Amino acid sequence: MSEAPTKRARRPSGGRESLLETAVGEFIARGYDATSMEDLSRAAGITKSSFYHHFTGKEALLRAALERAVDGLFGVLDLPGARDGAPAERLRTIVREQVRVLTTELPYVTLLLRVRGNTETERWALERRRAFDAEITGLVREAVEAGEVQAGIDPALAARLLSGLVNSIVEWYRPGRPGTATLPEDVVAATFTGIVPAP
Amino acid sequence: MSEAPTKRARRPSGGRESLLETAVGEFIARGYDATSMEDLSRAAGITKSSFYHHFTGKEALLRAALERAVDGLFGVLDLPGARDGAPAERLRTIVREQVRVLTTELPYVTLLLRVRGNTETERWALERRRAFDAEITGLVREAVEAGEVQAGIDPALAARLLSGLVNSIVEWYRPGRPGTATLPEDVVAATFTGIVPAP
Repeated sequence: MSEAPTKRARRPSGGRESLLETAVGEFIARGYDATSMEDLSRAAGITKSSFYHHFTGKEALLRAALERAVDGLFGVLDLPGARDGAPAERLRTIVREQVRVLTTELPYVTLLLRVRGNTETERWALERRRAFDAEITGLVREAVEAGEVQAGIDPALAARLLSGLVNSIVEWYRPGRPGTATLPEDVVAATFTGIVPAP
Repeated sequence: MSEAPTKRARRPSGGRESLLETAVGEFIARGYDATSMEDLSRAAGITKSSFYHHFTGKEALLRAALERAVDGLFGVLDLPGARDGAPAERLRTIVREQVRVLTTELPYVTLLLRVRGNTETERWALERRRAFDAEITGLVREAVEAGEVQAGIDPALAARLLSGLVNSIVEWYRPGRPGTATLPEDVVAATFTGIVPAP
């Protein structure tokens, strides 16, 4: 921020992927609206025109970053274990793999979860998030109807709480922390038997 | 935003409380950093100097708003049902009453959960949030040690997931929605028996 303008190349400025990674880091740290192409070029250690060679602008970067998160999440719904079998089992697969995507694509998913709908790209991303949540709600409903899940709680509420539980992980998760390896299964257990279940 | 400068008094400009409410709404909509005293005066329909009569500045408003949220949360820990009895029962009371505070003090808690630590007041609020979470972690640990809760999941992780589940409610909760009355008990059930428990 108070960096001297001559100090460049804070990070190696690989290709498109590395620029995207840098941009996502800046968007998360400063907020998308408050980040300029100037800021991004400085953070990436390249000139603005080099940046424009890879991306047409700030919204294109946002779009690419959000697409990566959205593709990751919808990829989970396409896994065989998420498509075939009993609804509760499919839900179990989805929760586990959603946690995995969230941890491996952490900055991209974090950005997706911060989107508020101020631009066309953000509205698109919100719509995709809603579509994902609707799939989960539908699956909870199927599981209730199949008698695999207790019907005590409204499926839409269950889907919201589930999404809240899973998504909150981005707030504290950092790669390599102890307990990382078992996190997907721990979240599955919390979902199906309780966060603090009776013994 | 594109309001003509002559159009004032969008809302009744009661006393301190009403100004605080207006300010919190603006902070949430625009972000704290992006909101000026100018914006706040316009939203409240009063002059800047009238605003300064009630609050010394933007950070004083933030502080008052965050104190309200923090006082609400810590008030839960002081309830008789949260202080006396078996750890799991105390936890049950806290979850239920925390959801209640969150829904009755929605904008204040929403603001608290968005704090990132950019100012002294924000760092204070983050410290209070951490202190609250530490109380919950301690209580989960006690419940595990007393054999009231399954020891399968790390107490710190359980407390994080619990906090994530509860706090995520601010993202979608709106007063008067169907299911509002049973929400505290539904969240308790989700916490202790699972969001989608087996029948």
